[in-house]
Amino acid sequence: MPSGFATNRLRRTDQIDTWAARAEVVVVGLGSAGACAAIEARRAGARVLVLEGQARGGGVSAESSGQFYLGGGTGLQTACGFEDSAEATAAYMKMACGPGADAEKIDLFAKNSVLHYDWLVEQGVPFKPSFLPTTEATNPPGDDGLTFTGSELAYPWREHARPAPRGHNVQHEGDSGFVLMRVLIEVVRREGIEIQSEARMQRLAVDEAGRIVGVGIERNGAEEWIAAERGVVLCTGGFGFNREMLARYAPTLLDCFPVGLETEDGLGIRLGMAVGADAIRMGAGCVMVPFSKPRSLVRGVLINGRGERFINEDVYQSVHGDVFHNRQDGVVYLVLDDESYSKPWLAFPIAGEADTVTGLARQLGLPPGSLEHTLEVWNEAAARGEDPLFHKADEWITPHVTPPFRAIDLRQKTFPYPFFTLGGLRTDTSGRVLTPESEIIAGLFAAGRVSSGIPAQGYNSGMSLSDCTFFGRRAGRAAAGALE
Amino acid sequence: MPSGFATNRLRRTDQIDTWAARAEVVVVGLGSAGACAAIEARRAGARVLVLEGQARGGGVSAESSGQFYLGGGTGLQTACGFEDSAEATAAYMKMACGPGADAEKIDLFAKNSVLHYDWLVEQGVPFKPSFLPTTEATNPPGDDGLTFTGSELAYPWREHARPAPRGHNVQHEGDSGFVLMRVLIEVVRREGIEIQSEARMQRLAVDEAGRIVGVGIERNGAEEWIAAERGVVLCTGGFGFNREMLARYAPTLLDCFPVGLETEDGLGIRLGMAVGADAIRMGAGCVMVPFSKPRSLVRGVLINGRGERFINEDVYQSVHGDVFHNRQDGVVYLVLDDESYSKPWLAFPIAGEADTVTGLARQLGLPPGSLEHTLEVWNEAAARGEDPLFHKADEWITPHVTPPFRAIDLRQKTFPYPFFTLGGLRTDTSGRVLTPESEIIAGLFAAGRVSSGIPAQGYNSGMSLSDCTFFGRRAGRAAAGALE
Repeated sequence: MPSGFATNRLRRTDQIDTWAARAEVVVVGLGSAGACAAIEARRAGARVLVLEGQARGGGVSAESSGQFYLGGGTGLQTACGFEDSAEATAAYMKMACGPGADAEKIDLFAKNSVLHYDWLVEQGVPFKPSFLPTTEATNPPGDDGLTFTGSELAYPWREHARPAPRGHNVQHEGDSGFVLMRVLIEVVRREGIEIQSEARMQRLAVDEAGRIVGVGIERNGAEEWIAAERGVVLCTGGFGFNREMLARYAPTLLDCFPVGLETEDGLGIRLGMAVGADAIRMGAGCVMVPFSKPRSLVRGVLINGRGERFINEDVYQSVHGDVFHNRQDGVVYLVLDDESYSKPWLAFPIAGEADTVTGLARQLGLPPGSLEHTLEVWNEAAARGEDPLFHKADEWITPHVTPPFRAIDLRQKTFPYPFFTLGGLRTDTSGRVLTPESEIIAGLFAAGRVSSGIPAQGYNSGMSLSDCTFFGRRAGRAAAGALE
Repeated sequence: MPSGFATNRLRRTDQIDTWAARAEVVVVGLGSAGACAAIEARRAGARVLVLEGQARGGGVSAESSGQFYLGGGTGLQTACGFEDSAEATAAYMKMACGPGADAEKIDLFAKNSVLHYDWLVEQGVPFKPSFLPTTEATNPPGDDGLTFTGSELAYPWREHARPAPRGHNVQHEGDSGFVLMRVLIEVVRREGIEIQSEARMQRLAVDEAGRIVGVGIERNGAEEWIAAERGVVLCTGGFGFNREMLARYAPTLLDCFPVGLETEDGLGIRLGMAVGADAIRMGAGCVMVPFSKPRSLVRGVLINGRGERFINEDVYQSVHGDVFHNRQDGVVYLVLDDESYSKPWLAFPIAGEADTVTGLARQLGLPPGSLEHTLEVWNEAAARGEDPLFHKADEWITPHVTPPFRAIDLRQKTFPYPFFTLGGLRTDTSGRVLTPESEIIAGLFAAGRVSSGIPAQGYNSGMSLSDCTFFGRRAGRAAAGALE
C-alpha cells in the first residue's frame, strides 16, 4: 500500500482502518523522561497512555547510577551547608555542555532547578542529606546524597563559575537509577495512567494537515494503531546500539562501546526525521574513562603515547574521555610513584612497573628521554605545589620520586571506552519537535536522549537524568496543551 | 494555506495552480555537479532544465583552484610517466576520507577514474601534460597538470597505499576552477539545455504518492512552480555560510571562516530533510592551514602551545587543519632556523625571532625548557636523517641549529582557518536521496556538497570536484531513468 510518503514509517489517517486505543497524550517509552511527561500531562488534565516496548518500564534511567545535576541552592545543597546560585549553575553548565551549549534550555533549567528538586522529593524520590567530599569518589559508592559530579573544582571551570557540589544522588548503596524509576512508575500508576507494555512503536500517523495524530505499534507480531488526540511524546532514548546510525552520524564512536540498553536503536530519532524533524549534534557522544577510582589516583600524571602530559588529571571523566579518544588516539597511561599508587577499582591493568623512570619508559615503548623530561618538569613544579602547565588543583599535586614507578594502562585498546549518544531531535524548551526551518511539528514532542538537550555536546554525571525529567515534565504539559 | 506538511517548504501538487515551466529533469544549481548532471541527463534523452539562483552559473566550482583527484592510471598520469592502480587509489582515498569513508562510492569512483578523466578531456577540459614535483607546491602556482595534492608521500599513508600524484589541475596559471566551469557551461549550452538564471529554489512539490515532482522558485519576488516529470537533482552546495546551521550541526566550525560562496546556505539540505531525507556527517568539515607555501617550510618543526611536536609537517593541509583546530585548540607555531627559513607566501606573521632557542621560547611564552627539549630531540635524530616520533619524509629532515631561530605564527586567532562543510544528504551511488531507513525518495537526487560524498569525513585537494562531477554525472543519468 503506497503511504503517500517517501518513507514507510508514516501513514495517513485515511489509510488506518481501526484504532486499537485512544488517548489525548501518548507517551512512548517509560524511562524517566516518559514517566515525567506522563505524570505532568495527566496532572494537566489529559487522558494519557504510555507505550513501553519492553515487558517492564524503567528504560536506561533504571540502569543508570541515579544522579541528578541540580543547582542554584536546592534543599539538599542547603541541608549540606552549601551555597549556590542559578547564575553559577548556568555559567558552569554552559561551559561543560559546549561548545555551543543550548543557552536557552540551560538558563530555564538553572532558574527552575530548586523547584525541580522539590518536585522530585514530592514524588517520593529519596535523597539523603549528606555530603561526600570529592576526595572520596565522583560516583559515590555509598548512599550519600550530595557530591561533585563534574569539573567544578578543576581548571579552567573553577575560574569561570563558583564551584558547588551539584550531583544529587538518589538514595541507595551504589547505583540507584532503579530506585528512581520504581518511584516514578509508582507515581504513574497512582495517577491512574494506563501503561501498555511490549508495545513497540514502529510508525507515526499523520493527518491531512500534517499533524502527528498517532502511533503504529507492533504487538505480538501484529500492527495496531494508537490515536493521540493532542500529541505524541517520544521518550525512546538514543542510538548508541545502532551501529549503522553511528557509522552515518558519529563514526568515531564506533571505536567505543555503548552503555545503556539495546533498545536504544534510534528509532525515535528516525521517526522524527521521517516527518521532517531536525536532528542536531548527531556526532556528539559522552565518552568516559573512569580511571580515578579511588579518587587518590588523580595524584598521578597522565601521559600520551609520546610520554607527554596533555591535560589536568582532576577534570570530569567525560572530559578525559573526549580528549583521550578524540585528541590522543586512545593512547594514554597514568604514571605514579609508589607513594601515590593504589590499585584501580576498575579493570585497568598495569602497563609497566620499574625502579627507574627510564625503565618504565622502556617498558611502555616511549620515545627515549620523554617521560624523564615530563616527570622532571612535573616534580620540579610539584615540589613548589604548582602545576603551571595544566593547573591541577593543589590538593592533588605531589612529586613522583619513590620507586617503583608504575603506569596504569588507560589505552582504548585495553579498556574500550564506554559511551552514549547525545545528539537527537531538535526541540524547543517545551519539548516541541522542530523542523530545520524552526517550524513546530504539530502533535510531536520529545524529551530525553531521543532529543538534543542540556548535554548538547559535553556531559557531566547527572545531566541526562536532569534533562530527561525537567524537559520530560515540560513536554508532557505542552502535549496536554497546558504550556505555551 | 495549510500545506499538509509539517513544514512550509513543501507543497502538494493539488495546491499548485500553475506550472511556469516543465521538464523531465530539473537540475538545481549550475556548479560542476549541476552541469555534469544536466549534460548526462540530456545525453540520456531527457528534456532538462537548469535552475541557477545567481545571474550566472559556475557556483563554488568556479571559485575553486580547479583540481581533480583522479587515479588508477589516467591519461595524464601516464603521459607524465607515473603508474597507478585503482586499488592504490581506493586504498588511499578510504584512508584520507575517513574515519568511516564511503567505501562503495570510493570503489566505484576509483574503478572508473580513468574513464572519468577521459570524459572530462572529451568535454574540452584542458590538462597540461606536465608534472610539478611536490617539492614545489601542493597547489601549483603555474599551469602544470599533475601534482601531489594529498598526503600520499607522508606517513602513515605511504605505508598503506603506493603513492602516485593524483592532483589533476585544469590548465591555467593559478586557480582554474573558472576555466572548468566555462567549459562545462559551454557544453550545457551546446547540448541545447535551457538555463534559467536568478531562479532561486525555495520549495519542493510533492505528489499524492510522496514523489518529488517539482521545484518552487522565487523570481523577481514572485513564486513560480517548475514541474519535474522524472526528477529533481539538487546541486546547491554546502552550508558553510549559514551560521545557524553550523551552530546546530557543526558548532566547532563557528571558529573558522567559510570559503566558497554566500549562496551556500544549506537550503538544499534542509529541503531534503523536509521530505524525510537523511542528512549525515553534518559535523564534518575540511579545515585548512595552508602554511607550507613555499613547500620548503615543511622543513620546520610544528609545535603546540606547550612547545611540543604533535604531527609530521609534510601531511596535507586539511590534516593539519583538523589536528590544529580540533586537537591543539588552534595554538600552533612553525619553528625554523635561519637555514630553513623562508618568508611565507600567505599572511602568517612572525611570532618570534631570537638568537637562542630559549630566547624564542620566551617570546612565545612557552613553558620553560620545553622548546629546548623538543629541538634537542629533533636535532639529535635529524643529524642521523631520522624522525622517529612522526616519520616526516627524509627529504624534509634537517637539523635546526643556525641562528636566528624564528617561529611562524599559525595560531587560529592570528590566521582564522578557512573551511567548507562536508556533511549533507545521504545518497546512493546513483545520487538517489535516501531516508534514514535507506528508502529511496522517489524523484529526488543530489550531488556535490549538498550531499555527503567521497570526502565524507576527510579531504584532499581535488576530491570535491571529482565527487561533484563523477556523481553529478551519475545523478543526471539516474534522474533521466538511464541508470539503475
